[in-house]
Amino acid sequence: VSSVPTDEFPSASEHVTQETINRYADLSGDYNPIHVDEAAGAASEFGGTIAHGPIALQTFFRSLTEWLEAPAPPAGTVINITFRAPTRPGDTIHCELRERDGDEIATECLNQDGTTVISAKATIPQ
Amino acid sequence: VSSVPTDEFPSASEHVTQETINRYADLSGDYNPIHVDEAAGAASEFGGTIAHGPIALQTFFRSLTEWLEAPAPPAGTVINITFRAPTRPGDTIHCELRERDGDEIATECLNQDGTTVISAKATIPQ
Repeated sequence: VSSVPTDEFPSASEHVTQETINRYADLSGDYNPIHVDEAAGAASEFGGTIAHGPIALQTFFRSLTEWLEAPAPPAGTVINITFRAPTRPGDTIHCELRERDGDEIATECLNQDGTTVISAKATIPQ
Repeated sequence: VSSVPTDEFPSASEHVTQETINRYADLSGDYNPIHVDEAAGAASEFGGTIAHGPIALQTFFRSLTEWLEAPAPPAGTVINITFRAPTRPGDTIHCELRERDGDEIATECLNQDGTTVISAKATIPQ
């Protein structure tokens, strides 16, 4: 990737289910009850199970690579993520471009209720 | 989590295989050839398939949550990631604490050859 694209930021939208989370637990070996045990989730501060961090980031990565028209962020890419709220089973997440300054972009990833789950910035090396 | 733990940063170590990547493709629907097609990977600038971004981050998240003794980063957690090199099938990744300043930590995630694949900082809300 030799330059940052100038087109609109793609609004990839992804749906997360308990099945997505369970399969990620199998893949990663991370079976923390907060992710996979509905009773433990319900008894927690979150009031239900929540997605693993990498799953919560999935929509942002998908949008970023579509925007870059590249299979992966190029080496040197810096990503700054603030976790605002948990991603839960049943959520549909999409990310919106909020600000752009040259090779830096600021996005917000929202669930179907309009709650920001992740604020993410990326700086693409030139 | 009311305070940042003071113990050593745990050195979670995770092994990534083509099977891990294929299962993540099934889970996310991201079948970009750079991840799942060995011939396409071999013909690319990377010389082989590479892991999806969230898979590359998995070891850092695992280490961070073990360090926090929490199932998930608390709301307000800021994570700053620089992608240095691709994570490839066969890699075993572990993360090391390099610097700590109060509630900010800086880590490096290395593969089995000692190559840094990701530099990651985290700031934990108090």
